[in-house]
Amino acid sequence: MTIKQRLGVCYYPEQWPRSFWAEDARRMREIGIAVVRIGEFAWSRLEPREGFYQFDWLAGALEILHRAGLEVVLGTPTATPPKWLVDKMPDMAPLGADGAPRKFGSRRHYCFSHEGYARECDRIVEALACAFGEHPAVVGWQTDNEYGCHDTVESYSIAARDAFRKWCRSKYETTEALNRAWGNVFWSMELGSFDEIELPNLTVTEPNPSHLLDFKRFSSDQVVAFNRRQVEIIRNHSPGRAILHNFMGAFDAFDHYAVGADLDMAAWDSYPLGFLERSRHSDEFKTRYMRLGDPDFQAFHHDLYRSCGRGRWQVMEQQPGAVNWGAWNPVPAPGAVRLWTYEAFAAGAEVVSFFRWRQAPFAQEQMHEGLLLPNSEPNEAYFVAGEIAQELNRMEARAESARAPIALAFDYESAFAWRIQPQGQDFSYFDLVSAFYRALRKLGLSIDVVPPAPEEMKGRKMILAPGLFAARPELAAAMAQSGALVLLGPRSGSKTKDFQIPLALPPGDFGSLLGVKVRRVESLRPGVALAIRDLPGAHFSGWREFIALGEEAEAALCCEDGEVALSRRDNFYYLSGNPNDELLDALLRRLLAQAGADIIDLPQDIRVRDNGPLRYVFNYGSEPADISEIAGDAVFLLGGKTLDPCGVAAFMRKDEAE
Amino acid sequence: MTIKQRLGVCYYPEQWPRSFWAEDARRMREIGIAVVRIGEFAWSRLEPREGFYQFDWLAGALEILHRAGLEVVLGTPTATPPKWLVDKMPDMAPLGADGAPRKFGSRRHYCFSHEGYARECDRIVEALACAFGEHPAVVGWQTDNEYGCHDTVESYSIAARDAFRKWCRSKYETTEALNRAWGNVFWSMELGSFDEIELPNLTVTEPNPSHLLDFKRFSSDQVVAFNRRQVEIIRNHSPGRAILHNFMGAFDAFDHYAVGADLDMAAWDSYPLGFLERSRHSDEFKTRYMRLGDPDFQAFHHDLYRSCGRGRWQVMEQQPGAVNWGAWNPVPAPGAVRLWTYEAFAAGAEVVSFFRWRQAPFAQEQMHEGLLLPNSEPNEAYFVAGEIAQELNRMEARAESARAPIALAFDYESAFAWRIQPQGQDFSYFDLVSAFYRALRKLGLSIDVVPPAPEEMKGRKMILAPGLFAARPELAAAMAQSGALVLLGPRSGSKTKDFQIPLALPPGDFGSLLGVKVRRVESLRPGVALAIRDLPGAHFSGWREFIALGEEAEAALCCEDGEVALSRRDNFYYLSGNPNDELLDALLRRLLAQAGADIIDLPQDIRVRDNGPLRYVFNYGSEPADISEIAGDAVFLLGGKTLDPCGVAAFMRKDEAE
Amino acid sequence: MTIKQRLGVCYYPEQWPRSFWAEDARRMREIGIAVVRIGEFAWSRLEPREGFYQFDWLAGALEILHRAGLEVVLGTPTATPPKWLVDKMPDMAPLGADGAPRKFGSRRHYCFSHEGYARECDRIVEALACAFGEHPAVVGWQTDNEYGCHDTVESYSIAARDAFRKWCRSKYETTEALNRAWGNVFWSMELGSFDEIELPNLTVTEPNPSHLLDFKRFSSDQVVAFNRRQVEIIRNHSPGRAILHNFMGAFDAFDHYAVGADLDMAAWDSYPLGFLERSRHSDEFKTRYMRLGDPDFQAFHHDLYRSCGRGRWQVMEQQPGAVNWGAWNPVPAPGAVRLWTYEAFAAGAEVVSFFRWRQAPFAQEQMHEGLLLPNSEPNEAYFVAGEIAQELNRMEARAESARAPIALAFDYESAFAWRIQPQGQDFSYFDLVSAFYRALRKLGLSIDVVPPAPEEMKGRKMILAPGLFAARPELAAAMAQSGALVLLGPRSGSKTKDFQIPLALPPGDFGSLLGVKVRRVESLRPGVALAIRDLPGAHFSGWREFIALGEEAEAALCCEDGEVALSRRDNFYYLSGNPNDELLDALLRRLLAQAGADIIDLPQDIRVRDNGPLRYVFNYGSEPADISEIAGDAVFLLGGKTLDPCGVAAFMRKDEAE
Ligand SMILES: [Zn+2]
Ligand SMILES: [Zn+2]
Ligand SMILES: [Zn+2]
Repeated sequence: MTIKQRLGVCYYPEQWPRSFWAEDARRMREIGIAVVRIGEFAWSRLEPREGFYQFDWLAGALEILHRAGLEVVLGTPTATPPKWLVDKMPDMAPLGADGAPRKFGSRRHYCFSHEGYARECDRIVEALACAFGEHPAVVGWQTDNEYGCHDTVESYSIAARDAFRKWCRSKYETTEALNRAWGNVFWSMELGSFDEIELPNLTVTEPNPSHLLDFKRFSSDQVVAFNRRQVEIIRNHSPGRAILHNFMGAFDAFDHYAVGADLDMAAWDSYPLGFLERSRHSDEFKTRYMRLGDPDFQAFHHDLYRSCGRGRWQVMEQQPGAVNWGAWNPVPAPGAVRLWTYEAFAAGAEVVSFFRWRQAPFAQEQMHEGLLLPNSEPNEAYFVAGEIAQELNRMEARAESARAPIALAFDYESAFAWRIQPQGQDFSYFDLVSAFYRALRKLGLSIDVVPPAPEEMKGRKMILAPGLFAARPELAAAMAQSGALVLLGPRSGSKTKDFQIPLALPPGDFGSLLGVKVRRVESLRPGVALAIRDLPGAHFSGWREFIALGEEAEAALCCEDGEVALSRRDNFYYLSGNPNDELLDALLRRLLAQAGADIIDLPQDIRVRDNGPLRYVFNYGSEPADISEIAGDAVFLLGGKTLDPCGVAAFMRKDEAE
Repeated sequence: MTIKQRLGVCYYPEQWPRSFWAEDARRMREIGIAVVRIGEFAWSRLEPREGFYQFDWLAGALEILHRAGLEVVLGTPTATPPKWLVDKMPDMAPLGADGAPRKFGSRRHYCFSHEGYARECDRIVEALACAFGEHPAVVGWQTDNEYGCHDTVESYSIAARDAFRKWCRSKYETTEALNRAWGNVFWSMELGSFDEIELPNLTVTEPNPSHLLDFKRFSSDQVVAFNRRQVEIIRNHSPGRAILHNFMGAFDAFDHYAVGADLDMAAWDSYPLGFLERSRHSDEFKTRYMRLGDPDFQAFHHDLYRSCGRGRWQVMEQQPGAVNWGAWNPVPAPGAVRLWTYEAFAAGAEVVSFFRWRQAPFAQEQMHEGLLLPNSEPNEAYFVAGEIAQELNRMEARAESARAPIALAFDYESAFAWRIQPQGQDFSYFDLVSAFYRALRKLGLSIDVVPPAPEEMKGRKMILAPGLFAARPELAAAMAQSGALVLLGPRSGSKTKDFQIPLALPPGDFGSLLGVKVRRVESLRPGVALAIRDLPGAHFSGWREFIALGEEAEAALCCEDGEVALSRRDNFYYLSGNPNDELLDALLRRLLAQAGADIIDLPQDIRVRDNGPLRYVFNYGSEPADISEIAGDAVFLLGGKTLDPCGVAAFMRKDEAE
Repeated sequence: MTIKQRLGVCYYPEQWPRSFWAEDARRMREIGIAVVRIGEFAWSRLEPREGFYQFDWLAGALEILHRAGLEVVLGTPTATPPKWLVDKMPDMAPLGADGAPRKFGSRRHYCFSHEGYARECDRIVEALACAFGEHPAVVGWQTDNEYGCHDTVESYSIAARDAFRKWCRSKYETTEALNRAWGNVFWSMELGSFDEIELPNLTVTEPNPSHLLDFKRFSSDQVVAFNRRQVEIIRNHSPGRAILHNFMGAFDAFDHYAVGADLDMAAWDSYPLGFLERSRHSDEFKTRYMRLGDPDFQAFHHDLYRSCGRGRWQVMEQQPGAVNWGAWNPVPAPGAVRLWTYEAFAAGAEVVSFFRWRQAPFAQEQMHEGLLLPNSEPNEAYFVAGEIAQELNRMEARAESARAPIALAFDYESAFAWRIQPQGQDFSYFDLVSAFYRALRKLGLSIDVVPPAPEEMKGRKMILAPGLFAARPELAAAMAQSGALVLLGPRSGSKTKDFQIPLALPPGDFGSLLGVKVRRVESLRPGVALAIRDLPGAHFSGWREFIALGEEAEAALCCEDGEVALSRRDNFYYLSGNPNDELLDALLRRLLAQAGADIIDLPQDIRVRDNGPLRYVFNYGSEPADISEIAGDAVFLLGGKTLDPCGVAAFMRKDEAE
């Protein structure tokens, strides 16, 4: 399936005089915007008093946009319940881990477990879907907004506690089973009834990790259930419209694959500069990329959400200028917004939608730039959008999809697990997977980021799954049958699903595949490096394991202290530590060659990405780069052999062109 | 008006045996102390049980001090309500932003909005004013003590919430007006009734900045109202006595000008070493000045509080030795206490009063030094005070007052605004204004620190207002009419009074004066510098704006990336970034020359200050300095041509002497 | 008294199938384990429902261990009350200083002041003591587990508040006495009734230090009383068994001497790597010793707890591998576990007991290694234990005891005091005493760490008491009569017991001994050094005092600014600042020579320790060391003249051998 790639914008008609709407729509069309998202925070205007619906203005806005030739994605307003509703049921507030209520006055002030609030959501979603479900302008729906933003997945309210008890009862059936799964004999934590279960906050020292993991699973399930109620209502009333949700970046507090499974496509909100500031990169890195963002962060999420959307995805909010929420908020480099947009299209985005049309002069996000200044003059991104729209037309750009030969697993339960038990305080699953992703991308590869599902293993040349929390026999079997080269570890398979150490020792059910046992592990403070023999500059840091080789396994790399660093059994490898970039680069070059995957020797800060037959090249550096070797004698659709900073080139791949 | 300059001391007769009092008073007189502050924490001794007044001891102390020839400033004890009172109305406790009560057991444990407590204060103040209002020893009154110390301006109690609702109703009259002013359509924050207003704490993510700004204004107004009740009672009963309050340093949580407007004079508590430790200066700076303090911090506050007192002011608590409340508490350098005292007198202080007479051997401040050791032996400052008293007599020192040609605006609402929305996490209004102040002072200028009031603009050669939150047309008009050179920005005029971006874009109502529009802004992480063309070493850091010049404006300085750094329209300048010291120095030299203000080329760490015809010179460095060029052939009243570290010189200015 | 030194292990039969027990016991015996601790967290298995005791399994385990020839220390399970008990009396939860309850879900979730919980503890302890008090396997009892771990000494519950009021009433009898002792006249803190006393949390600024000190004393007393109830019950039912408690490291929130006084012996839990990570050492230090631990930390605690146990002590939990609770958790160096074990035996430990037999695959401590892996295969420490057991047998190792010529005071009230009032934010009593300890140990000395009790002063060559909070006349007299060289200061004697400055000025009752008065003190930020004259490299940092010498005292060392750094009056010295290592080394060499104590010039990272006639030598460095000069021509029982990294040598001291 290929789909025409288009631009979108986020628009808030309720925030502007009605007299602005038609001119706004006209200008959107003029610069080539095709899709407009509206409505997702407008509850207080849609229902200013309980049961007193005011949909006229929305109908008017839809009509104006429709007449201008714009398509609309309509958001449900459930991320911002109005004050009258909150006052009706004050216990709908989420409670923080410290036990304090999280009050009205910004957004996301609801507990996912509060049935009363869920019913209110059913009601407003039903009303909206009934009213506009078949409106010709409406081509899609967005449920709620950025689930989990501001740490809102977990709530410690009474509603959450009662729901968690029910969830546990349903999962375990007997307290004996729960006590066994959690190992509650330890520290006399055994429970005699499901009503004795507490939420895992405010404990004297850390709670039981199994208890925490189930609470995170439960909290994730509550998000899934909350979303599904809206999806089902909308489906009933709005046939043929795509339902999506706009996810966030570097966010792992619920299972996005599971939410995605109920949607028609995935979307995410891409803020390269804000996310860079929030990351754990060094100050030097942050300063270096302060106006363009981490060259690999957006790309990773494009791949991740393409997976969540089972191939269909888009950017719902693209940063168009400085934002308001970073620790510091620089203006993007000239060219940055265009580069970001093409990175998304290169990864198969159907739409890239800018946030937002016009900068609001009021309230929390008044310092967040838009395509227009608050006084309606064009800001820089306005012109950029126009330029891209023309280029897209000229290129006849389409979202293509194909299974990549390289699959990198990203698993939300593993993220839960290693947050619960980092064992070394800076251990991060997200950073570990990101390091593998970056190393692969620097070698010019297109990658699928996938859940650890057996069906994702098929048809791959290489499968990578660092830090994969728990092994499942069917996954191990799928890996074995795939014929792919498989690289696991560190920490892969080191727990059972109940968060216990497997009795066969880690890597648990991966053990027979790999032929190793992990006897001991250690975390290492920053600055401690365990050099790898015969690979100058390569080392482990932060994490290292001591493994015993089974009969069929051999040491492929060793640490200088003699411990095995990489084991091999046939085409199954286990890496027993946290690798630095040099180690990853050397290791992946070796394994990719063995797997028969082609790499490209890219200059630093150059990245490539294939979308169907098109190959895109991006320059994240501060100097012009010569990409003639990459392009060969291909004809450029965008750019040319010299790529300026922030530059984008695109050409037809030779293997495709021939 | 000129007033004889004298020394004072803070004294707690209730903390010492009655037998000590006469000898204490004798020794005070002996070393030349003229004024004694007493009583401000003595509620539990003045009213040990409800309604059971015990004023005899205070009458006795006043009598003893009076007979020794000492004048008394009497403090109201409302900063420390006793336990029996608190237990009567437990809801008088302020609540922190986290919702936790702030309990009895230290001081300032009251909510400014609690009417019950306010009535108790009326009662005790009335009783004291009746009893001692016309006592011959009493020459002044101090209301309460250090309003706002320990973060006590804002309270999140029920009393505060109810008072804030009332305040909002009174300000906005209709919820429509409030919703519009706050931009509550954003995120469905619209309110249907004033009773729906919550305090802006415990929200899921940041609250609406307009909401926060009004809450800060309200909280400031509560302090003003609380103080005014005491002032009015005292005025009724104590005619002719000066009423003051002792403010703190680097403290911007309420409008000190507004409190000052109800007083007869301002006072502040000057702790150079403690305040240096609390500041955001670098470790290197703190170590360098660890025994003498920031050379410009005290000076700034002297000018600020002279303004708050409309010309009449004093130091109520002068650090006399090591204190107890810094992160570290070194002993001042020999000479430091004398230097600090003369800095205050040079700035027109009527009294410099040391805190405290005798070091208490008990309770929270037992490590705070006094003029005497706990065993009544003299500590070092005892002798210093005696020496200064003799010098003052010899010099016939008098507090003079005159309008300075340079006015630097400091505005409390701007401080509120930029705390609410720094946009870059280290942006500080106080630091921004301080940098301008320091640069001016290093050029030898005497400065008035002023509120942004039209009447303060008159008669100036130069007016500076960096970071001035909101423009008012009448202020812009006064600036235009003043004939002064005006330097605004960065961020000046960037908001309306409602905390919205002006629809004409920043600098709002200053725009016509300056001929510029600010289209975009950015904050920059530490270490990022935007060099200024043709000014080696000069740069912006932390903050930078992108401005568009109107027809009548021109670029006076540019950044290396070509953006305008300083715009000029006639004698109106706009600086579009946060300047480093080199940029400020070069810029101010240029503008001061244009404005016709004389500068003095001072060696590093030398500062000067004029008090009427007298010019004082201070050495904050670690080496002796030759000041003969500054003094010319003037006759020294203090010091001489070589100024030792911590040294003070004073001579009659030539223009005055001739 | 000499006692055979043996190995032990901590074992949790309730966590494993009954079928494992006999084989576990057999293997324990096989490798030479003699003592097994069991039961201390097993309440939910001993009493799964209220009043429904299930002791059969424990009887069975005891029987199996007994038959295998193992001795048992039985723990009371009161550190982990089960959920049904907590639900019966929810107010038994301790409250944090922030007012939040500390909930069920880990351990130590009880308030020491809750009488209802104390009665439940009486009941279960009584039941266990009745059942097993005279069991032939049971040779000892452990009360509870790690009192105070996870900051649990202080609770801010209603139960604690009421008990504290009672405690104050009992101590002071009248509020006048309390008000005077606390100096409550300051800030009107005077109380009219004991029922007005609040706990010292949630105050607006810091509470009264006297109030805090009494609260810490009270909280310490509550631990003592809680422990004593268990001890008395056990004594009644289990004659001849040693009762102990397992204390922690670097833990000073209650008076361990006072708890120890009710016990038959002391024990502590020694985790060299975990404690190093938790310490305030530099990153460089932590990295250097990351696999072996601070060379002096364990040694200090061995001496401290030998003192708490009045000569009888043991290590109850010896780290056997990586742990789970450090910020980072490296695997110990090969040889580290053996070195740690011998450090304890060299200090006179009766037993070194490893924690734990088998690594648990579940719950909070699943990443804590044991002698066995979770699958029962031997981990490294299993073999180490076996090796040590054989060596102990061969050496016929016995715990010896003798008074050391050097006594270093460590006082819990001083630790309370300087936590309450550090005056410089990094001042730490524990670090101050540790620095003296380290300097002494580097000079090859064996040291007694002692409480500041008069009887401990006798028979010493040198007594050191830095930072000793309050002087008592009888202690000063004992020092004077001891004939020892005495080194006091800084801060010694600087407060009265009520936390007031002595009216005679510091060092209070030590003043007549030392002939000095401390007039002023200062704390200094990191990086500020006050050089000592004529001692290159020596300086004070962090803390310095200004002292006046009495007629009989002289300056033995001076700072470069001329202030006295060390005073001397006969054999009484006062050090007026916080010394760096160079100063301590030079000073102690000088004073030890004067005191007639022999020092040994040890290479860096080499430490020695005498146990009776045996001298042990340890290598904490990363290179082999030549110790032939230390050993002379002695015959080695362990090791030899070249000591490898982590190496241990032992030989008969020549003075003993001859
Ligand atoms: Zn319907
Ligand atoms: Zn009256
Ligand atoms: Zn009994």
